[in-house]
Amino acid sequence: MDLIRRIEAGQGGFLVFALTPPRLATERDEAQDIADATIARLLPLDLDGLILYDIDDEADRNAAERPFPFMPTLDPGDYLANHLAAWPSPVIVYRAVSKYAPAELRSWFSAQDPGQVMTVLVGAPSRATAGRTSLADAQALRRDTNPALSLGGVAIPERHARREDEHLRLLAKQEAGCRFFVTQVVYDINAAKNLVSDYHYECQTRGVKPVPFVFTFSVCGSMKTLEFLRWLGVGVPRWIENDLAHAADPLEASYGQALTTATELMTYCRTLGVPFGINVESVSIRRVEIEASVRLAAQLRAHLR
Amino acid sequence: MDLIRRIEAGQGGFLVFALTPPRLATERDEAQDIADATIARLLPLDLDGLILYDIDDEADRNAAERPFPFMPTLDPGDYLANHLAAWPSPVIVYRAVSKYAPAELRSWFSAQDPGQVMTVLVGAPSRATAGRTSLADAQALRRDTNPALSLGGVAIPERHARREDEHLRLLAKQEAGCRFFVTQVVYDINAAKNLVSDYHYECQTRGVKPVPFVFTFSVCGSMKTLEFLRWLGVGVPRWIENDLAHAADPLEASYGQALTTATELMTYCRTLGVPFGINVESVSIRRVEIEASVRLAAQLRAHLR
Repeated sequence: MDLIRRIEAGQGGFLVFALTPPRLATERDEAQDIADATIARLLPLDLDGLILYDIDDEADRNAAERPFPFMPTLDPGDYLANHLAAWPSPVIVYRAVSKYAPAELRSWFSAQDPGQVMTVLVGAPSRATAGRTSLADAQALRRDTNPALSLGGVAIPERHARREDEHLRLLAKQEAGCRFFVTQVVYDINAAKNLVSDYHYECQTRGVKPVPFVFTFSVCGSMKTLEFLRWLGVGVPRWIENDLAHAADPLEASYGQALTTATELMTYCRTLGVPFGINVESVSIRRVEIEASVRLAAQLRAHLR
Repeated sequence: MDLIRRIEAGQGGFLVFALTPPRLATERDEAQDIADATIARLLPLDLDGLILYDIDDEADRNAAERPFPFMPTLDPGDYLANHLAAWPSPVIVYRAVSKYAPAELRSWFSAQDPGQVMTVLVGAPSRATAGRTSLADAQALRRDTNPALSLGGVAIPERHARREDEHLRLLAKQEAGCRFFVTQVVYDINAAKNLVSDYHYECQTRGVKPVPFVFTFSVCGSMKTLEFLRWLGVGVPRWIENDLAHAADPLEASYGQALTTATELMTYCRTLGVPFGINVESVSIRRVEIEASVRLAAQLRAHLR
């Protein structure tokens, strides 16, 4: 069964890989070369789908200085349409809705083939951001314009650790049409388990069928990347930071940590009966980190079967 | 090698079991029956040693009402001397030092055979407690009275989560003569890993050899026991609480959680190269919980080899 039908049926067991589109300044030919190289690298993984992120500046999110400068990227919808025609499985396109006017979103929604594309709508990075469209309005636009287009939402275990209501937000998103949730990168296994657990038992109480969680994992090959993950709001336990800081090969250490966290979370979700998929993200653009991400995805594929 | 020599050599790989002495009001014959039954139950585990706790009221620790009423127990030193002569391996006797006058501690220290007994000295449960002897004074008394008597200290991962200096306290205790550290019950794996990690890298920085950590695990068969663990300051993640609250068989659920946490922590310590032992504690006096603790110890013994 393909990814879209599987998600619509509330089933997990799938593997996706997340990409950030090339920088906005990339020439068309070069963008095609990047897309071709990416497809060649990912095809052997037999992925159930791709995720394309929609990068926002998020300067409002955090007063601290961004460890890497913000680089605008190609629009993920355009990148898909113009460069990824050869990609064989469904693609989940993120939309940072506050960047767009309602008319832009409407026109993009209506142009999508619901048999090939899904979308994850992401609200403004902070309450202070005005935003051109709210998450609720974007959800309504999708429903009105292209109700067959599968909708997903983001799940933030770290927000649950602070506010203890993320499971209720997820259920509200589910009522607004979400059929799956994608987490940010998971480094803190307890934060992820706490969220899944509260979501699971709240579904049980309400008699609602849980939708698939898509857990995101990445490797982190340097303290700079780690610092960036923290800036993005990812909770990284101290022992993970220590091990990376002292490892002869931080990338291999990170690979081992991600594998352990992922397999333990998978075991936990199986025990609970919560459907889940796995997303592997390449946070950095360093070649060795990309290759380690691909290796991680291949290994996690084996654990999904 | 027996437990005492192993610890003095800085080596881990051992299994101990922790007991609370019978209630103070217990008749002498009845106390002997309890001791005999305990020995019979524990002998097949081939334990490297026993731990005898010294229970304090700890009313100062927490303003909240104690979930179980405080029951004074027999003195662990007396219980050992009067009832556990048949026990074949070394015994670690806790001393809640603030309960005793210096002269009482001195006389107990001097009476111990350093080939059979070790001691863990525990300071006052809160700063507000006046206490008859301070931890530093008790450490000095042990050194002056019976320097061959092996000394251990307590390690509190939850305190590290709040103050981030527990690894420095451990190193100070090590300088005061401690040759091992026993944790309180571990439910939050990240808190334990964070402490071990900070301790390990601080030892590395100082060129100090790490001493064995003894990680304590228990099973928890009811929400009341869980509440008591929290009252004692044990950090229990939300997902563990949820699973116990909803499990058809909470004791089995807790058993599985403890096994998973213990094996993962063991793997982690092996990766770091920190020596460790395992302590299984029976928190409750319910027969099924005691039996599950014994089963847990037997299973963890297999993972130590």
